[in-house]
Amino acid sequence: MTQTKKVGILGATGTVGQRFILLLADHPIFAIHALGASSRSAGKPYSSAVKWKQNVPIPAHVAGMTVKACVAEEFAECDVVFSGLDADVAGDIEMAFLKADLAVFSNAKNYRRDPAVPLIVPTVNPSHFDLIPYQRTLHNLKKGFIITNANCSTTGLVVPLKALQDAFGPLSQVLVHTQQAISGAGYPGVPSLDILDNIVPYISGEEEKMEWEAAKILGGVSADAKAFEPLSNTVVSATCTRVPVLDGHLESVSVKFANGTPSIEEVYQVLDRYTSEAQALKCHSAPEKPILVTRDADRPQPRLDRELLKGQAVTVGRVRECPVLGIKFVLLLHNTILGAAGSSVLNAEIAVAKGLI
Amino acid sequence: MTQTKKVGILGATGTVGQRFILLLADHPIFAIHALGASSRSAGKPYSSAVKWKQNVPIPAHVAGMTVKACVAEEFAECDVVFSGLDADVAGDIEMAFLKADLAVFSNAKNYRRDPAVPLIVPTVNPSHFDLIPYQRTLHNLKKGFIITNANCSTTGLVVPLKALQDAFGPLSQVLVHTQQAISGAGYPGVPSLDILDNIVPYISGEEEKMEWEAAKILGGVSADAKAFEPLSNTVVSATCTRVPVLDGHLESVSVKFANGTPSIEEVYQVLDRYTSEAQALKCHSAPEKPILVTRDADRPQPRLDRELLKGQAVTVGRVRECPVLGIKFVLLLHNTILGAAGSSVLNAEIAVAKGLI
Amino acid sequence: MTQTKKVGILGATGTVGQRFILLLADHPIFAIHALGASSRSAGKPYSSAVKWKQNVPIPAHVAGMTVKACVAEEFAECDVVFSGLDADVAGDIEMAFLKADLAVFSNAKNYRRDPAVPLIVPTVNPSHFDLIPYQRTLHNLKKGFIITNANCSTTGLVVPLKALQDAFGPLSQVLVHTQQAISGAGYPGVPSLDILDNIVPYISGEEEKMEWEAAKILGGVSADAKAFEPLSNTVVSATCTRVPVLDGHLESVSVKFANGTPSIEEVYQVLDRYTSEAQALKCHSAPEKPILVTRDADRPQPRLDRELLKGQAVTVGRVRECPVLGIKFVLLLHNTILGAAGSSVLNAEIAVAKGLI
Amino acid sequence: MTQTKKVGILGATGTVGQRFILLLADHPIFAIHALGASSRSAGKPYSSAVKWKQNVPIPAHVAGMTVKACVAEEFAECDVVFSGLDADVAGDIEMAFLKADLAVFSNAKNYRRDPAVPLIVPTVNPSHFDLIPYQRTLHNLKKGFIITNANCSTTGLVVPLKALQDAFGPLSQVLVHTQQAISGAGYPGVPSLDILDNIVPYISGEEEKMEWEAAKILGGVSADAKAFEPLSNTVVSATCTRVPVLDGHLESVSVKFANGTPSIEEVYQVLDRYTSEAQALKCHSAPEKPILVTRDADRPQPRLDRELLKGQAVTVGRVRECPVLGIKFVLLLHNTILGAAGSSVLNAEIAVAKGLI
Repeated sequence: MTQTKKVGILGATGTVGQRFILLLADHPIFAIHALGASSRSAGKPYSSAVKWKQNVPIPAHVAGMTVKACVAEEFAECDVVFSGLDADVAGDIEMAFLKADLAVFSNAKNYRRDPAVPLIVPTVNPSHFDLIPYQRTLHNLKKGFIITNANCSTTGLVVPLKALQDAFGPLSQVLVHTQQAISGAGYPGVPSLDILDNIVPYISGEEEKMEWEAAKILGGVSADAKAFEPLSNTVVSATCTRVPVLDGHLESVSVKFANGTPSIEEVYQVLDRYTSEAQALKCHSAPEKPILVTRDADRPQPRLDRELLKGQAVTVGRVRECPVLGIKFVLLLHNTILGAAGSSVLNAEIAVAKGLI
Repeated sequence: MTQTKKVGILGATGTVGQRFILLLADHPIFAIHALGASSRSAGKPYSSAVKWKQNVPIPAHVAGMTVKACVAEEFAECDVVFSGLDADVAGDIEMAFLKADLAVFSNAKNYRRDPAVPLIVPTVNPSHFDLIPYQRTLHNLKKGFIITNANCSTTGLVVPLKALQDAFGPLSQVLVHTQQAISGAGYPGVPSLDILDNIVPYISGEEEKMEWEAAKILGGVSADAKAFEPLSNTVVSATCTRVPVLDGHLESVSVKFANGTPSIEEVYQVLDRYTSEAQALKCHSAPEKPILVTRDADRPQPRLDRELLKGQAVTVGRVRECPVLGIKFVLLLHNTILGAAGSSVLNAEIAVAKGLI
Repeated sequence: MTQTKKVGILGATGTVGQRFILLLADHPIFAIHALGASSRSAGKPYSSAVKWKQNVPIPAHVAGMTVKACVAEEFAECDVVFSGLDADVAGDIEMAFLKADLAVFSNAKNYRRDPAVPLIVPTVNPSHFDLIPYQRTLHNLKKGFIITNANCSTTGLVVPLKALQDAFGPLSQVLVHTQQAISGAGYPGVPSLDILDNIVPYISGEEEKMEWEAAKILGGVSADAKAFEPLSNTVVSATCTRVPVLDGHLESVSVKFANGTPSIEEVYQVLDRYTSEAQALKCHSAPEKPILVTRDADRPQPRLDRELLKGQAVTVGRVRECPVLGIKFVLLLHNTILGAAGSSVLNAEIAVAKGLI
Repeated sequence: MTQTKKVGILGATGTVGQRFILLLADHPIFAIHALGASSRSAGKPYSSAVKWKQNVPIPAHVAGMTVKACVAEEFAECDVVFSGLDADVAGDIEMAFLKADLAVFSNAKNYRRDPAVPLIVPTVNPSHFDLIPYQRTLHNLKKGFIITNANCSTTGLVVPLKALQDAFGPLSQVLVHTQQAISGAGYPGVPSLDILDNIVPYISGEEEKMEWEAAKILGGVSADAKAFEPLSNTVVSATCTRVPVLDGHLESVSVKFANGTPSIEEVYQVLDRYTSEAQALKCHSAPEKPILVTRDADRPQPRLDRELLKGQAVTVGRVRECPVLGIKFVLLLHNTILGAAGSSVLNAEIAVAKGLI
């Protein structure tokens, strides 16, 4: 039995922070120890500081915790620090925590491109943890490190891409169109006047993230474990839209295989059988399987499928021939679970299982 | 001044039929003369037979008209017959009307593939009216004929494709993803339990229609005006989804040009300057221009842009490089105006201008 | 430990039937034994017969069960029969089941007004089970009986009314306005074109039901247990509307007390402390308390509060002075749990605890 | 023919300001002369300063106008100043404009309670303009004055109440429940996460406004035209909720008549026949009739009825007996037209017709 780890949550009052609290409230190895938020919230009981927007109450033992400022000294006892901070403040705060020798799991985009920071989707590339020893050397750390998880829409995309790449070899072209839920924009986020009876075919910076993140995540690690080796021959084109859905990003994907197009049935089989190190390590938050295949003609659907397998799997359906690229399919992920806090928690469980924490 | 033409509307109580009534209520050359619906409605005043779902009242002179059965004798005086019938009954009824030497403008899919029936998007291929003399010969008609308009989502797609093809030569690959409004499914149509806080990534038969209709519409007519010459080298791949939007189909399109990719600015210019025979003929329902270009980063949006230019134009925005195919953009059309009844009315105006009616 | 009871579900493929299956899938004393639906579904495996619209999968042991026709012989082994049948067929079928000496728990309106059929909201008037011996005499039954639960919106209303009436004496006037979720209309139910960006201020028959059902439920049973004694001095006025919400009916209530208006704080206390026989009997599905009081200024809200206490409690908030009637407040209930299947299941648990089954 | 009046719009970039621009763009007697907004917008062309959220483009001649700061000197040439300012800044700015001898028509709540400021719903109490001479005396003005229009939900309520009061004598009790559109909260206003699949049963300050404003509007003016005489015997109780509807407030109303309850048919007749000074003066924006009666069982509905009669009428339906108070009905008004900018414009037209401008 693993010993319980103390965890801190930065940005605890935000949308991602609230999801962290739900995921960690009854966790077998992580115990919520400290909550961090802006100076406006610091000093208040959590229940007063937060605009709680979940459909279950604030866990009783969390409601009364006093919110702290996001300074490393306040989190010195934490074995794990989860960050749901916004990008505009995450850069400085996360760096200060790293330098304080803390283990930081970030949802922000700030360090995703850093050549020494792993960008990990837990059911895709936990092997990128191999760079942690090198990262510690760079920053002269004993136990601290920082890893990030991917943008929500990238996360959903790379899980089936990884399965397909492993089975059928490199993908030369990927064209993806997303329909993203409003919860992805945080709170207050998307004004209702912008999205009721409407779609906004633009999310600032989102398409660029999808187009480069995939290459790092689906790529490997150098033999000396000092560098990432992003894919160089997989081109991704993304179009991202915001839709009037509460939770769950739907993505339509067309892919071209460098070595020839498999059959539809082969694709279904490969997706269905895919498994990852998160399953092998028997991590608490790992879904039974990374990909849930549906063969119903009109699925996946956000409202019906987003909660399946605890929101930690990607549901894939409608695999069919793409007259242009070869194969096309539709996927769905829960954007605030697998697409954000859930990935972080699972990444931390993997890190514990690997002895990094 | 053109003499007023008497028009009949088949399927007058349905969603498309109601739109016909709005478009024709104050029309300068068409006068509503007869309304046809199912036997259940026949004999009733229109206002009793219809579940009117428009946000303006039933035009006063239409409300009291007696609905007729959809039999040709009842429409013998009509110069033009617009059909908003469902596909399950449109086949027989429209054929009977054709054989009665009536001019039928159909929204149904039944005769779209017929080698002697033009499939016309009014701002794209009114030249396909050239086949009418041949069609009349086949059916031994004097003044009657049948033409169809395209599926709503196809209609939006082919307008900018036509502009691009005219300017830059053939398109070898087109990948399109639609987000289609619920009004496209008629009434009662999509159950609210299926679409509130949800997306349905499937519309029966829709993807197939988009993939083949474009080739017929964008192709030419043989020199003897007895056959269509569909494009054979343009491959289309479509993914169609239903979204919680009342009116307005949004489509994300990526295209590959056979002869090299133009610049983004060239594409914007070509779309903006595109004009069609409908404009040249100064048809009443023709929009000022077939394509309305927006350069705002987050447009077009269904709720804000669907009514522009009387709902008869396609709004195109977000033209940008597609790393996979070359150029990508987003378009919007009003699915029950340009995508259905509006196209039919404009097609009929063109037919009048060409002397076919 | 109570012995496991075999249960049948009539109307198993409908919206209420699906909710029954979720509530009973892992029930400690009820085991799903037989599923009944229309002749169109009979003979098929449940998973083929149903259009499953829940956000969790069909329970594995139910998916393969063969659906039966709704005839009593097929349910002869059932200790309990839950009916989610529509009113147009419920009358005959439920009567046939009753005459076959089965214990029927109906959600339909057909027998609610019957002078020998209890209309029971489990956290309000389980005392009305006292009429069962008399009902058995009437129909010459040994173990069978029929009870109904109330209309969904009535159910939410009477729980706090009962608490107030018990504490402060009779209510002379009640004015209630409902905002009812679309799931209350079943599937396909409300067309999306009717409810997106809209409200429908009318639900057929609903206002009448609310206005008379409350009197029977809040009334007593005669001393000889052969008749109900509905309230005669409580006048209810209801306005019912349909809103674009998936689940959860919100009701705004103003009440006038015959014996003088209590203070706001007294009302809060009484609502908070209210408890019922369902709690005393420690029934499995009984919520911790029948009424969940919220003092937040902007609660209850359907999306945030409908799932609290397993959806079996009524959440009440915004208690304040009503300048016209005395006291006003807002309540919320989950219409397909407490408002339908959940009440039935809890009623059956009470019946078991009372030794009636 | 009235001479054209120059008008200024304060808060021109906000939701109400945008509606003013649409209403005034082609107005026969008002010409948009100056636009005022916050210092952040001042100096910019209107099209750059505004986040335009209407479904028609910015009128061409307005798009290029330079936005001014809200200081009186900049509006000195304006015959009429419409204010769509938020309450937090409206108090000081509107007073400064008044003292500069300008005619101010305010939508803000700040001066509604002022004993010398008329609170006018144009189809209800234009007689309150009689206090303007007295107001001018107080402030030592020649041509300036200030009037306010009512809160949107009050506006819809008082129109039928006025008709009923005129016909049947005083109303002793009024109970009203509102379902208010999101556009009433401005932009960005209601976060989508708060209102999709949800209702918020609380709008800060709204219930209080409805409860007192009605008494001032429905009351009279003293014989010396120096004071208002609010109703003292009409008690109003309001419950206000926010719903996922774009435009259009729906209100359910129960009323008690001091002198006995009229029949349903009498109520319908009285509502239908009601007319006001705005009609008598033939004002451009006056609807054909102040109240549009519908006898359809399920109307009025926001999406279908809000635009009728240019959004300047109140639609009333579902008149029926209220078992508690006597009569109940449902009404609908367009909250940003009749409920805000449209009332202001019509008030100004009345003022011109009365020779006050």
